[in-house]
This record gives sequence, C-alpha cells and structure tokens, in this order.
Amino acid sequence: MTNKQLILSLYQIGSIKLGQFTLKSGQTSPVYIDLRQIISYPDILRSVSNLMWESVRASRFDLICGIPYTALPIATCMSLQNNIAMVMRRKEKKDYGTKQLIEGAFTAGQTCLLVEDVITTGSSVIETAKDLEDAGLIIQDVVVLIDREAGGKKNLQDKKYLVHAAITLSDIYRELLNTDVITDTERELLHHLQESIK
Amino acid sequence: MTNKQLILSLYQIGSIKLGQFTLKSGQTSPVYIDLRQIISYPDILRSVSNLMWESVRASRFDLICGIPYTALPIATCMSLQNNIAMVMRRKEKKDYGTKQLIEGAFTAGQTCLLVEDVITTGSSVIETAKDLEDAGLIIQDVVVLIDREAGGKKNLQDKKYLVHAAITLSDIYRELLNTDVITDTERELLHHLQESIK
Repeated sequence: MTNKQLILSLYQIGSIKLGQFTLKSGQTSPVYIDLRQIISYPDILRSVSNLMWESVRASRFDLICGIPYTALPIATCMSLQNNIAMVMRRKEKKDYGTKQLIEGAFTAGQTCLLVEDVITTGSSVIETAKDLEDAGLIIQDVVVLIDREAGGKKNLQDKKYLVHAAITLSDIYRELLNTDVITDTERELLHHLQESIK
Repeated sequence: MTNKQLILSLYQIGSIKLGQFTLKSGQTSPVYIDLRQIISYPDILRSVSNLMWESVRASRFDLICGIPYTALPIATCMSLQNNIAMVMRRKEKKDYGTKQLIEGAFTAGQTCLLVEDVITTGSSVIETAKDLEDAGLIIQDVVVLIDREAGGKKNLQDKKYLVHAAITLSDIYRELLNTDVITDTERELLHHLQESIK
C-alpha cells in the first residue's frame, strides 16, 4: 500500500474526517484524525506499520516503544513484522505484583525507538520519552504515522529527538484532493486549507 | 513451538516463576505467572498467539477482543496472523473526542472471541464480557493461554462462556518437572504440588 492508498483507506474507514472538530487542546480543526479504528482492519494496521518502518529504516535502535494507547497495536505489529523487542510504558502503576512503569526486558543504555500514531505538539512523546530515559534508555528517534504540522516536530527536535513522519497533514490535503471519494463541500474545504497554508 | 517448549521459554524469560508469591487476590501461590515480558520476545508472542488460535480453531466468531492489558498484544498478534478484526475495551473513558468504551468497527449481533493471558477466577473476563454485551456483541468463546485451575473455567461456564485453555497449571508443573532447567528446590516444590493435586 502506498502513502496515497493508505490515506484513502484511512478516510474510508472514518479515521480521517473533514469538517469542524474540537481537538484535545480545545482548539478547533478542520481535520479530525483518530486511528483507534485501525485495530479492526489488520491489512491497514500492517500497512501503517510497514510505512512507518520504512520511514525509520536508516536509524538504528535496540527496542521499540509505542505511546499509549493508539500506537500500542502499531508498535506490536512493527515488533512482530521486524522481530524487534518491544517495551511498554504503563500509564498507571499496578498496585500489586512487580511494580514498574516500563514493562518488558531491557537494560540501561539500550536505544529505543518511540512509536506514535499522530503528533500535534509532541507532548505525549516527551512525557513517554522522559519515563524511558529515567529508566536508563536512550531515545534518539521518534516515528509517527501522521504529523499534524502543529509544532510537534520542532518541539521534539529542540529536545534532540529526530522525528520521522510517514505522512503529514499537507499530504492528506493533497492526496484527498486528488481522489473522487470526497464530497463537494469537503473539496471546497480542502482547497481553502491548501490556500491558507501557502 | 510446542506447548512444552513454550512453557520452558516462559520459565526462561521469567514469566513463570516458582517460589512463594502473593497474588492479586491476596492469596499466596507457589507459582507466579506474569506474561507482560513477552512483548520483548516477538517469537514467543507469535507462539503464544498460534497456540491460542489452535485451541479455539473449532469455534466461529466475527471479532476478537483482548482483555487489558497483557492480552492486548496477544490479541493484536492473533488479529494480524489470522486477518480477523479486533475490538478493544478501554478501561477508562476518554474525556475528549468520540466517547466510547468499546473501540473499533463492529455492529450489534456480531460474535466476539475474548482473549486473556491467564485466568484465575475469571473476574476480568466477566467484566469485559459484560461491557461488550452491553454494546450488543455476543460472547460465546474465551481463549486463555494459562488456566490457573482456580475456578475460573467453571465460573465462566456458569455464565455460558466456553473456555479454551492452551495450557493449565498442571501442564506447567508436569512439563517443568520433565526438564533439567529447574533447581533442586524448585523440583522438590513441584513434586509436592503434584502430590497435593492428586
């Protein structure tokens, strides 16, 4: 599956929507991206994983870690497809058994690739990176499926993390405009958005 | 990988430990099972998934759902290996975006296989099954990697769920006794445990 085909598939399963939406930050956005649905489409999950792996193939790392929650199945797929060990950061500590925030087998000094579905400002990535670094891991690379181009890449680069994005919001605008699956209203919205970027 | 090889691998990576442990319920147990580590061993994760899939191959279902958290990567692997759609039950609702407890694409009336790593009393399975049923899904089968043989299977059967376990605690006792990787103290403990079951 090419990037273009994937963007189309994500639109068709409702993981990319055009309209007016309120983001986590409270800001409104003409594009809603929610990749939680991809768990129901193993082919799409595999394509997402493959495209992300391609984006980061020039980098070297010992482990991968998905950022909870949506990126966890993506990281699992990348781990399985490429035989690379995964670690996981719990969002909350368990109150019984072996207490630890980072799960999996690792040793301090290993490098770990962070895997995220979408970055906006990059705050979730920074939060997870900190916990992994506190556990002795080294974070150099971050791979994301979609970069919303809202400052996240720069924020992460300021912290010396190299961001590899398989798809940007501009790619989504461009590729959807090149298809005939969108409505006239959506086409008008996309034209307007492309103009506003220039 | 056979069941025996998997049991040995799980012991070797520390996912099965012999000694004296306090369980979630507060009870003590001579066997500690914690499958969180398997995310760092893609081969083991794949074997776990394959053995579980074999255990449930005679059943029919439209979807699968892993029980948070340890069974999520297992369910993801089963979904990818067998091209079957997955849904996910969030433990907590998000306070923004599309609010829903069950994530993924599904329609009421579809059948869903529950996937769990270990059952003791079966309470986590019952809790997840209820949420899925409230969303209109039909639960008939539950597949687990390890049945601790502590009443879970019966509790679930009382609720009309059919439990398929790839491995039981007795299998673990027997197979570990048949290997030379365990210590003398562990061997003595296992002999004692086997006697107490008879």
